[in-house]
Amino acid sequence: MTIDELFNIEIWDTDPELYRQSVDKWDSIAKPIDGLGYFEEMISRIAAAQGRVCPDISRKAMIIMCADNGVFEEGVSQTEQKVTRDVAELMGRKMSSVGIMAKDYRADFFVYDVGINSQDIPAGVIDAKIRRGTSDFLKEPAMTEDECLKAIDTGIAAVKKCTEEGYGIIATGEMGIGNTTTSTALLCALKGLDPGTVTGRGAGLSGRGLEKKISVIERGIEKYRGGRKKQAITAKDEAFEALRCMGGLDIAGLAGVFIGGALYHVPIVIDGLISATAAYTAEKLVPGCRNYMIASHVGRENGMDIILDELSLIPVICANLALGEGTGALLLFPMLDMVKSLYDSGTSFSDTEIKKYERFEE
Amino acid sequence: MTIDELFNIEIWDTDPELYRQSVDKWDSIAKPIDGLGYFEEMISRIAAAQGRVCPDISRKAMIIMCADNGVFEEGVSQTEQKVTRDVAELMGRKMSSVGIMAKDYRADFFVYDVGINSQDIPAGVIDAKIRRGTSDFLKEPAMTEDECLKAIDTGIAAVKKCTEEGYGIIATGEMGIGNTTTSTALLCALKGLDPGTVTGRGAGLSGRGLEKKISVIERGIEKYRGGRKKQAITAKDEAFEALRCMGGLDIAGLAGVFIGGALYHVPIVIDGLISATAAYTAEKLVPGCRNYMIASHVGRENGMDIILDELSLIPVICANLALGEGTGALLLFPMLDMVKSLYDSGTSFSDTEIKKYERFEE
Repeated sequence: MTIDELFNIEIWDTDPELYRQSVDKWDSIAKPIDGLGYFEEMISRIAAAQGRVCPDISRKAMIIMCADNGVFEEGVSQTEQKVTRDVAELMGRKMSSVGIMAKDYRADFFVYDVGINSQDIPAGVIDAKIRRGTSDFLKEPAMTEDECLKAIDTGIAAVKKCTEEGYGIIATGEMGIGNTTTSTALLCALKGLDPGTVTGRGAGLSGRGLEKKISVIERGIEKYRGGRKKQAITAKDEAFEALRCMGGLDIAGLAGVFIGGALYHVPIVIDGLISATAAYTAEKLVPGCRNYMIASHVGRENGMDIILDELSLIPVICANLALGEGTGALLLFPMLDMVKSLYDSGTSFSDTEIKKYERFEE
Repeated sequence: MTIDELFNIEIWDTDPELYRQSVDKWDSIAKPIDGLGYFEEMISRIAAAQGRVCPDISRKAMIIMCADNGVFEEGVSQTEQKVTRDVAELMGRKMSSVGIMAKDYRADFFVYDVGINSQDIPAGVIDAKIRRGTSDFLKEPAMTEDECLKAIDTGIAAVKKCTEEGYGIIATGEMGIGNTTTSTALLCALKGLDPGTVTGRGAGLSGRGLEKKISVIERGIEKYRGGRKKQAITAKDEAFEALRCMGGLDIAGLAGVFIGGALYHVPIVIDGLISATAAYTAEKLVPGCRNYMIASHVGRENGMDIILDELSLIPVICANLALGEGTGALLLFPMLDMVKSLYDSGTSFSDTEIKKYERFEE
């Protein structure tokens, strides 16, 4: 894919009539109007995304993008860089946190190495390595245009493969030491925000560690955005530049997943800050993607609220999560199953002899 | 049980040392500190409630209390009273909303008729009928002291039975047309709140319906609390009186379930407003119960926030739910399973050769 091809992608709008039919279906079910709250809207958005009133989300996939970040060298993380590879190896065997959590739950894992700083590809991990970690963005742009496009392409292709295999919904996950730094930098650049108000502790930084992280992000934004650092980005090429210069291969890969979801009409579940930043970037690069995005949780990192608000997406889990790996998106799945059971049940008021509730205008 | 016996119940404090051991166990797992946020605290509270670092929540029960409310006669609901019986019948067959949602999930249902306004007991429903619906509280107290105590006793006995059968966690649910009115009245009485600021639309009241509901609640509180209506209740006998005069048999039954949880050391999951009001009442009647309570969601009814705050409990689902039946509490279960898998896994830093994260003081 060339950059022009990326910028020329057009996304089909989801069908408002189909959405309305789905709302009608909810209202016909023997329960109070809007009884399942935001879950009802979520199912109706999934219906509109898949283009059918009764969407099929029986087969579920997790696409997890793993990559290392050069900015790690600036001391923005409390752990060693090799943790990325070690956790990716565990992920490949479904033995990392998200894998263990999914133990008794049917979700298939597709773990991509798009740029881990290692020679080998761990067993069970898909080889899509573009380079061994990005460059330290304080020294030079994190990646080249070609590398960034390749990562996006990998994400799009991953979704295409999933749809061919019959997956009806895809959760996103990631692993990459330093990726709350890259995400926050990218988010601040995209929105024109002050890093001091947005930057969080990632995987548990101390107060001093947090100060350093903020300073690194500030210097990065100064370097690439300079005088425009307080301006939100609207142009596609500026968004791409921000992703290329300060993002990670994991973020670019996940942005591709969100674009792929919109292209192939599969709802993609946002996880935490990194995944949300990728979603936001995807919407900037290819407007209209947001109709195919599903929010799961609002995590601990400050940026989450901002992004979900920008994308007009409503999360249903508010548990102060900060684990990453796609754990928050995974937690949504079994709840969606339960909600979908009721949606599919067709236990309507006519079956139960219960008088239907009326929808009042407020 | 006499009223003195109720007021003399003493609850064992959960063990802070055990709680600390559980936090240590979380910190030893290969993930960022507090990565699973409020879920970690939830598991540690369950551990402390059960009195073991590795609590057993493999067997799960739902106790659902069904009863009718005399205040229905004042026109506070948009539906017919017979819906209580009809839905209870569906519940008995796991065919109501909560039953359908639990279809593919292992949770056993115990549906109690503590006071449905019907002659029969539907199949699959446990006969614990105390009377056929309460009295309209605008005319006379909803129930007698004896009836109220019987309902509480039923809840305590229900938990005792569950613990004997090996259930490690119990979710609460209810069905009773008019029970957001009784709950809101009781909550306002207990907290000394103005009904105008707390009363919600229940199962979808219109604006005019809402005004009438507020007026009914105001008149009820005036009748039973009079000059003390703006004072929060602290005395046990006043709390009991508020429950007896304005509550429902379902609320009293669920209050018993929360007391039972504390007596038998089983965590009890709060569902929506009705269940939360029962939990709050239980804490007023038998202080210390709150240590055995688990919050699931913050529903649409305004009172939820207030109660969870009073009980210092943190919900993890924020989906604007307003279905009742225990659906919100049920949605928590599969997430707890996932979180518990990670807790039990023992994938520790020593196994993975990943350096442990440090817990910094902020």
